[in-house]
Amino acid sequence: MSTPSYLIPSRAAKRTHYDQESIYSILDEALFCTISYSVENRPFSIPTSFVRYEDKIYIHGSVGSHFIREIEKGIPVCITVMLTDALVVAKSAFSHSVNYRSVILFAQAEKIEDISLKSDAFKWLTEKIVPGSWDYLRPMTQKEVRKTTALAFSLDEASAKIRTGMPNDEEEDKQLPIWSGLIPLETNRAKPVADPSSQTIPLPEHLSGL
Amino acid sequence: MSTPSYLIPSRAAKRTHYDQESIYSILDEALFCTISYSVENRPFSIPTSFVRYEDKIYIHGSVGSHFIREIEKGIPVCITVMLTDALVVAKSAFSHSVNYRSVILFAQAEKIEDISLKSDAFKWLTEKIVPGSWDYLRPMTQKEVRKTTALAFSLDEASAKIRTGMPNDEEEDKQLPIWSGLIPLETNRAKPVADPSSQTIPLPEHLSGL
Repeated sequence: MSTPSYLIPSRAAKRTHYDQESIYSILDEALFCTISYSVENRPFSIPTSFVRYEDKIYIHGSVGSHFIREIEKGIPVCITVMLTDALVVAKSAFSHSVNYRSVILFAQAEKIEDISLKSDAFKWLTEKIVPGSWDYLRPMTQKEVRKTTALAFSLDEASAKIRTGMPNDEEEDKQLPIWSGLIPLETNRAKPVADPSSQTIPLPEHLSGL
Repeated sequence: MSTPSYLIPSRAAKRTHYDQESIYSILDEALFCTISYSVENRPFSIPTSFVRYEDKIYIHGSVGSHFIREIEKGIPVCITVMLTDALVVAKSAFSHSVNYRSVILFAQAEKIEDISLKSDAFKWLTEKIVPGSWDYLRPMTQKEVRKTTALAFSLDEASAKIRTGMPNDEEEDKQLPIWSGLIPLETNRAKPVADPSSQTIPLPEHLSGL
C-alpha cells in the first residue's frame, strides 16, 4: 500500500507497516471498524461491521441511515480497526502498553450500484460474520437488496500499526523485584443459543463447531 | 445526560439511552475508545485507552504525540466506545444483527494542568487496565508526569445505544426450518505471561486471580 501523503507523522514509526499481508490479516480478523467523517469540520464516528474483498473493504447500511447518506456522497472518511492482543504490564505505570494490531485508512465511499456486485458484497459480509452460512439462509430478496446500501472503500491509503512483545522497561527498572509481563486478551465465540423459533431445529454444520 | 442539540437523528431511536447508568456501565467495562477529530474538514481517528472518573473521561498520551497536540487545542471531538456481546444470526441474511453496547459522545478536550489531578488521572487509567496494581508499581516520577499529557472530556453530550435479545426475523420467515439465535462473543483476560526479567518474581495478588 502506498504511504498517504498526508499521513500523520508517527512517534512510533517503527510500528507502522504498509505491506498488504499485515493490512489484510488485520482486516480479515476484525469484525468491526469505526468510520469517521466530518460535517462542517465537526467529527462524527460510528462503529460498523465490514468485510475486505480483494483490494477494498465493504460496509452496508439502510438506505435511510443518516450516516450512510452522509458518507455515500464521497466525502473523506477515516476508518480504523483495532485488535487487542495483550495488556503489557511493566514495572512502572509509565511503561505500560498494549499489544495491538490496528489499521487506519483514508478513503471516500464508492456506492455500489451494480446489483450483482451489491449482492456479492452482502454475501461476503454475511460469510465473514458466520462462515459457511450464506447458502443455508433464506435467500436475500430483490426488495432487501434495494433497501440496503453497500459502500466500497479503497485500501490504497491504508497502513497498519502493530505492537508485539514484552514491556520496554527503563534500564534502571529492570532489576526491580516487580512482576512484569503480558496479560493476553482473548476473544472467543461461545456456544450458540437458539431462538425460541429454533429450539427443535438442528444446529447447522457451520455452527456446530463453535 | 442531556440530548446533544446536533445529535444525528437515529433510525434506531428505541435503542438509544441517555441515562447515566447505561452510559457509565459501558464506559467502565470498555478498555478502549476511538477518538475522532477533523482538520480542515478531513477526519482522523485513533483508538486509545481511557478511563471514566465521576462525570468525565480521561485519556493520556505523549506530549510529543501529533494526535494529542491536535486535540488538546480544544477542537470538537467525537468519541465512540463499543462492546460486542453477540452475533445475532437470523433466518435471513437481511435480519442478521449484532448485540452491542456503544457510547458516542461529543466534547472538547480539557488539558489537565494541575499536577495532582494529572497524577490521579494516570492512577485511574492504570487501575482500570490492571485493578489493584498502582501501589505495587514503581512510583511515577515527576519527569514521567511532565512527559505525558492528560486530557479530560465532559460526558454532558453522551448517549448509549444498546441492542439485546434474539433476532427480529420477518413474520413470514419465523416458520422456516432454518436455525436462528445468538453466538455470544466473550473477551477474557488469560493467564499472565512473565517477562524474562520476572521469571522468579512471584505473581502479585492482583494478578493471580487471572
